[in-house]
Amino acid sequence: MSTLTENTGRRRRKRGGDTPTAKRTVNYRQLKNPFTPQTVFTEDRVAAIHDTSLKVLEELGIKVLLPEARRLFGQAGARVDEDSQMVYIGRDIVTAALASAPRQFTLHGGAPDRHIDMQLGSLAFQSGAGAPNCSDMLRGRRPGTLRDVEELTKLVQHFDAIQMLSPGVEPQDIPVHLRHYAFTRMQLSVSDKVPFVFSRGTPQALDAFEMIAGFRGLSDDDFRANPHCYTIINTNSPRQIDIPMAQGLIDFARHGQPSVVTPFCLMGAMAPVTVAGAITLSHAEALAGITLTQLANPGAPVCYGAFASNVDMKSGAPAFGTPEQVKASLAAGQLARLIGLPWRNAAGCAANTNDAQAAHETEISAWGALLSGASIIIHAAGWIEGGLTVSYEKLITDMEMVQVMAELCAATPAEDADIGFDALAEVQPGGHFFGCAHTMDRYATAFYEPLVADWTNFGTWTERGARDANDRARDLWQKILSDHRAPANATGDRLDGLDAFIAKRTGEGGAPPAD
Amino acid sequence: MSTLTENTGRRRRKRGGDTPTAKRTVNYRQLKNPFTPQTVFTEDRVAAIHDTSLKVLEELGIKVLLPEARRLFGQAGARVDEDSQMVYIGRDIVTAALASAPRQFTLHGGAPDRHIDMQLGSLAFQSGAGAPNCSDMLRGRRPGTLRDVEELTKLVQHFDAIQMLSPGVEPQDIPVHLRHYAFTRMQLSVSDKVPFVFSRGTPQALDAFEMIAGFRGLSDDDFRANPHCYTIINTNSPRQIDIPMAQGLIDFARHGQPSVVTPFCLMGAMAPVTVAGAITLSHAEALAGITLTQLANPGAPVCYGAFASNVDMKSGAPAFGTPEQVKASLAAGQLARLIGLPWRNAAGCAANTNDAQAAHETEISAWGALLSGASIIIHAAGWIEGGLTVSYEKLITDMEMVQVMAELCAATPAEDADIGFDALAEVQPGGHFFGCAHTMDRYATAFYEPLVADWTNFGTWTERGARDANDRARDLWQKILSDHRAPANATGDRLDGLDAFIAKRTGEGGAPPAD
Repeated sequence: MSTLTENTGRRRRKRGGDTPTAKRTVNYRQLKNPFTPQTVFTEDRVAAIHDTSLKVLEELGIKVLLPEARRLFGQAGARVDEDSQMVYIGRDIVTAALASAPRQFTLHGGAPDRHIDMQLGSLAFQSGAGAPNCSDMLRGRRPGTLRDVEELTKLVQHFDAIQMLSPGVEPQDIPVHLRHYAFTRMQLSVSDKVPFVFSRGTPQALDAFEMIAGFRGLSDDDFRANPHCYTIINTNSPRQIDIPMAQGLIDFARHGQPSVVTPFCLMGAMAPVTVAGAITLSHAEALAGITLTQLANPGAPVCYGAFASNVDMKSGAPAFGTPEQVKASLAAGQLARLIGLPWRNAAGCAANTNDAQAAHETEISAWGALLSGASIIIHAAGWIEGGLTVSYEKLITDMEMVQVMAELCAATPAEDADIGFDALAEVQPGGHFFGCAHTMDRYATAFYEPLVADWTNFGTWTERGARDANDRARDLWQKILSDHRAPANATGDRLDGLDAFIAKRTGEGGAPPAD
Repeated sequence: MSTLTENTGRRRRKRGGDTPTAKRTVNYRQLKNPFTPQTVFTEDRVAAIHDTSLKVLEELGIKVLLPEARRLFGQAGARVDEDSQMVYIGRDIVTAALASAPRQFTLHGGAPDRHIDMQLGSLAFQSGAGAPNCSDMLRGRRPGTLRDVEELTKLVQHFDAIQMLSPGVEPQDIPVHLRHYAFTRMQLSVSDKVPFVFSRGTPQALDAFEMIAGFRGLSDDDFRANPHCYTIINTNSPRQIDIPMAQGLIDFARHGQPSVVTPFCLMGAMAPVTVAGAITLSHAEALAGITLTQLANPGAPVCYGAFASNVDMKSGAPAFGTPEQVKASLAAGQLARLIGLPWRNAAGCAANTNDAQAAHETEISAWGALLSGASIIIHAAGWIEGGLTVSYEKLITDMEMVQVMAELCAATPAEDADIGFDALAEVQPGGHFFGCAHTMDRYATAFYEPLVADWTNFGTWTERGARDANDRARDLWQKILSDHRAPANATGDRLDGLDAFIAKRTGEGGAPPAD
């Protein structure tokens, strides 16, 4: 994971020599979670929740709006009531699906070092996603456009500690029947990370698959052989899967691409008011979605997911960064480990501006996700207003947290030379280690270099204008955007290929989203 | 710990009944850390660090400036060089001290529900401490006065999730030979939590002990029989213990009061540049201090401590909230568990204002401390500028984090009724849980109520003046101060007793601090 140990070994130099020029290199691209997953429930209560979820699916059923999905469930032996669109899924069907879903798969990016391992224990971060709006200090708060999501994607491309693309903001300036073309082209042209595909009906999904396969130079079979993109499936809690979501589960599975099945359960609103109840509902819905992928294509890659927080019972407003969210994340992790699948969890933030509340809410919920053993932590940077807005400045300030978390994944050298008895012997009581050999050998690569933190003293900081983290973040995202270079694989001919495809499909009328 | 389960059980009510009036009550006063302590080093490397620390004390020695302390070490068999003031402490002496130090003790506050259990696994928070300055949005940044530290102590008294007093800011308006009188009186008059006593020489310590014993109505023997206050001992890294610190270790031990022995090791400055090396030095110094307490009074209560972070190697400035700080905390926790003593760790923040950097640095370092299994987490609220200032607003915004962490210590109900199959059956697909019986039974006590978070939507928030977390925190600390009531035990006669003592001792010339 870390190359710190090797670096410090390689660069041994004499005391008082030149300043080391070696750069600190920590691989943020493929992370393993260094923490023991934490629990909130005893094992017997986790089993009880799992059992209750199965009972919910079996006895209470789930409403599935897509006829094809009901057919698949029915063919597998589920009881289907076509009038009510209710599907009652026996636990044997769910158990068989969990047995066929792979425990591990590799998401393919545009270069081998952008591939991501997906299994319990692996760790990837995603920036804030799914917002209608964005905001920055220069241009204010506004409905998202293609330019905005392109800028946010460039920011994400810059940071190795964000390993996957996500739909930052909705590009509302592009007509819905053409939006997926512009969005997919944009992702491929500015980033070689694993792209995201919206689940908005079969025609849009197939268009996106064709664009990605063409751009990556893959045959249909090559594309299906490995995951090259992913989608996110939100159920309509409680107990409902709508048409585009069900269709997405089927289409992505049939093409060998993973769905991340993530019920969004707000305790006290669309889910029970208790952590245990909300997670039971979330688990039942996730199991239903995962089962559908396996009925459509046994062995298809799929991620378990959970995103549960609570509402403010005074106002009904969604709340994030709450102890209930952290506990629900830990509970969901227990269930993910019970079924053994890679899974997604989320940070969250309901603040309206990038202040101490915002930083705290994202951070404490990200810790909940990290300690829950999530394979993917979404909304880890930039998400404010409970997901209604992505903030450019918050994306930058949150990246400090994400990078520190990525640093925690790196090994910590502790050989005898690192312990450094000789250095301790060299420096006399009351002295300092600034110039000793042990320090000179290591200092250039010893410490994480901050992204946005300012560690100058108060006097210097004041003299320099008393600029806060948002001021510095504003400068930084502008610099990252102006320094952006297209990834090596975004070649002219590949982009031409995308443009030709888009022109053809646009001429054919595009692809309206499914209702 | 939590009364959540009992509450929800007790208040069962019919659907559609009156609004529940029961208040949510979670006991923040006595916490147990709910998390499995995390590690950065393998057990054999932890053993190697411990062994190297013993070797440091044995072969390299530690400079002890106080003759009485050197005498105690010498009497125990340590090799003492009076010319250099170096003491070489054999590992048998350290091992014997670790065997006599108690694994558990109870810090006594002014009321039984203010007592704090001290052992591995228990958890207490302290606010930011030891700063020369304080700041708030109304009065700006200024050198600390008695009024400031009194206000900060009132804020701490208000929050149950801060269980112990600490020296927030230095009351620089009080002459040094009288400062401990004013400081101790202030603590006892505004708070019934465990007080802090500075270690600034025997006369000051004995004055403070006498004041506390008198105020609490304890005989000398009663006072010595249990810890009723504590002090913090910082070694002068590397490898030096100065006169007031050594004297404090001896005096507190002899009076049955705990020292928290906390080397402050900045990697690359007064400690080796590596996490392993810095923790080795920190551990050696802590062991020396702990050993001195046991030589002075075998069986005296004492806390292990560690506070290690790194400097910015470009500027030499102290940095906090770094991955190196988190790793050092986890490493120190491994060593604390090796020796089995209750221990103190710290959050930290080098930001100059209460912005996203400030919130992040305190939070990520507090998580490091929490996951390291620290019994006490100091600087958890209000600490900025690397400890040069305590911010009133940051104290409030950080308290949100501390309270959420305290909430995570509470049990999470998961009985069958909490899982709520009936509620899941009651709410139809696409419906909501706002009015169902399961929710009505629980909603008034289900969720943590935020301290400073504003969860209103962007429109409402904007209409109400777009006030950020600092604005709200400013209002809140003012309200807490204006609502402050003295604790029940701060009776007139007890305060009169303190005043009489102070007048007498002031007339005698007070007690200048030890050099």
